[in-house]
Amino acid sequence: MTKVLIIYASDYGSTQKMAEAVAAGVETVENAKAQILQAEDVKQEDLLASNAVIVGTPTHMGSPDWRIKQFIDQVCGPLWMKDALVGKVAAVFGTASGFGSSGGGSELTLLTLLSNFAELGMILIPLPKNTPGFAKAGLQWGPCARTGDENLTPIGVSDEKLEAARHHGANVARAAMALKDTSIFRA
Amino acid sequence: MTKVLIIYASDYGSTQKMAEAVAAGVETVENAKAQILQAEDVKQEDLLASNAVIVGTPTHMGSPDWRIKQFIDQVCGPLWMKDALVGKVAAVFGTASGFGSSGGGSELTLLTLLSNFAELGMILIPLPKNTPGFAKAGLQWGPCARTGDENLTPIGVSDEKLEAARHHGANVARAAMALKDTSIFRA
Amino acid sequence: MTKVLIIYASDYGSTQKMAEAVAAGVETVENAKAQILQAEDVKQEDLLASNAVIVGTPTHMGSPDWRIKQFIDQVCGPLWMKDALVGKVAAVFGTASGFGSSGGGSELTLLTLLSNFAELGMILIPLPKNTPGFAKAGLQWGPCARTGDENLTPIGVSDEKLEAARHHGANVARAAMALKDTSIFRA
Amino acid sequence: MTKVLIIYASDYGSTQKMAEAVAAGVETVENAKAQILQAEDVKQEDLLASNAVIVGTPTHMGSPDWRIKQFIDQVCGPLWMKDALVGKVAAVFGTASGFGSSGGGSELTLLTLLSNFAELGMILIPLPKNTPGFAKAGLQWGPCARTGDENLTPIGVSDEKLEAARHHGANVARAAMALKDTSIFRA
Repeated sequence: MTKVLIIYASDYGSTQKMAEAVAAGVETVENAKAQILQAEDVKQEDLLASNAVIVGTPTHMGSPDWRIKQFIDQVCGPLWMKDALVGKVAAVFGTASGFGSSGGGSELTLLTLLSNFAELGMILIPLPKNTPGFAKAGLQWGPCARTGDENLTPIGVSDEKLEAARHHGANVARAAMALKDTSIFRA
Repeated sequence: MTKVLIIYASDYGSTQKMAEAVAAGVETVENAKAQILQAEDVKQEDLLASNAVIVGTPTHMGSPDWRIKQFIDQVCGPLWMKDALVGKVAAVFGTASGFGSSGGGSELTLLTLLSNFAELGMILIPLPKNTPGFAKAGLQWGPCARTGDENLTPIGVSDEKLEAARHHGANVARAAMALKDTSIFRA
Repeated sequence: MTKVLIIYASDYGSTQKMAEAVAAGVETVENAKAQILQAEDVKQEDLLASNAVIVGTPTHMGSPDWRIKQFIDQVCGPLWMKDALVGKVAAVFGTASGFGSSGGGSELTLLTLLSNFAELGMILIPLPKNTPGFAKAGLQWGPCARTGDENLTPIGVSDEKLEAARHHGANVARAAMALKDTSIFRA
Repeated sequence: MTKVLIIYASDYGSTQKMAEAVAAGVETVENAKAQILQAEDVKQEDLLASNAVIVGTPTHMGSPDWRIKQFIDQVCGPLWMKDALVGKVAAVFGTASGFGSSGGGSELTLLTLLSNFAELGMILIPLPKNTPGFAKAGLQWGPCARTGDENLTPIGVSDEKLEAARHHGANVARAAMALKDTSIFRA
């Protein structure tokens, strides 16, 4: 069994919807199992028991939600010290109002999360542009759904935007499966 | 007279159009003068004679056009060694196909340029979200116009997307004017 | 009077020491006044009453301390909605264990903070490489002191590393002074 | 046979030395073969024939050498259009004068390269902090050797700094081997 842990913070439900789509994608892969947790509920054991971690966040002023960072600092920090997650697989996803029509700060938001996972020594899975759904909700770093219109009014996440998220979940599950009995990083 | 130098590379004319809009904005400010140059034509003297520099680039696979980087390495590099541009004003703008609806890699593209100008010790002017036109072509780091549709087909730059670029030019001209007789950085 | 607000989070006192050096630098400038607050104590009024804001953070796994992000999301977020800080001056500083001898993740940490301030529409002050002290504790985005050795053992912040921080404070105070009666950004 | 292509640009030989160490690391892995090319000599066929690509660059004013970007734009661009490198493995390394003792702009330099490879849909291999040699020349994004002292004087790359580079090469070879007969990304 390959276990994929999906962790998120959400304000109005859009990032949660993306998390659920990622999880649904994971479960389309045979022998892969998804678990979804809100950032404040994650324990070190959850991370240690997983083969891959996929983290999602809203974009708040160009960087991740503070609850995600609290989880990184408090739960992942001690595991970083012990190199306990080295060699597992990581990926990210996000949402953003998208105000400005150029991503609304979502790119650096996803990159900031990836920096945390690179620090943990995890292998990073991007989102290829030929992924179904990429045209609606794609960024090279992971799926990212625009959730606002040109007046900053929330518009929710339409189902067609979730397609990239589902594929991302399946991609990560397959990568975790391919890598889980290997020992890529050696001292 | 406050001189603002606008430097760009362009493939199909969209970034050039943005450069012209930025220049038009500069010239709406009394006592400000704009000069536009393609990246390959810029000489050190052009930079030394300017109070502000605004650089624009297409987004190519998530980072600036190589001609811009050649200009940075070859023309700006020696000026960096001599700290010759410290205290001048800098700003950036861009274009991107926007494929994926989340900026298409434009954010890190603009940031990469800003890193070059921070290295040069230049004061950085962002694009506030209340700038007219921001909703159509705005990113916190500078105006950025989406130039492709969901099929990666070029759609050009509509006039309404140029509005943010015009304001950016005027903002930078005013900042350069306010800062030009000061001596912010002292040894 | 030009008011510069210095905001920080600190774990073991190194970032606090940097904050105090930045504040000391501010106060070397005539008619400039520094105020230091920990991130959890900042109120909207403090920001509104200031001409410039300088924020400092430790580097935690390649991004800012979660307490800084909580302050950004909860205190700055509503001000972002109202464009209330547009045109003020912003700058950043940091500390990092520096493990690895290549910055230890401090660069993206400072950039993440700058993204927040660009979103707020604030003018960004970098750290020129000819700043006294840069060789000991300089990064283009702001002063950053290495606080650990090659074994990840804390080594504190020596006084010579604080020199860049002091100059940064003075630079920001002068920039805030030059810009405070201007109106750079106009609708 | 697993093929790993190492691509670099070098000014004074330091990045070349790192490239050679990465290649030596690749060849410690059974059934892995390294090929080294300078950026200007790479052809599309070289990329298509490889299971993994590792690219190295000096840090020039906070971003990669222009010759690397020219290679990305001109050689990789058409392959990006065709999604021809999706699912291969990518990693990066660098050098920097390190002036300032906080990485000297190397972090965003490596990130800019990683953005290019994420756009290509490649799986990204970081450098875990427990990698031998990390303390001397490590960054979460890949090995990075400081090549200058506090006076910006070149100091070359000592052998102990090459250790992280050798391990990085071996890590990437193993990752490419584990992933090469899988099909992680599916439409």
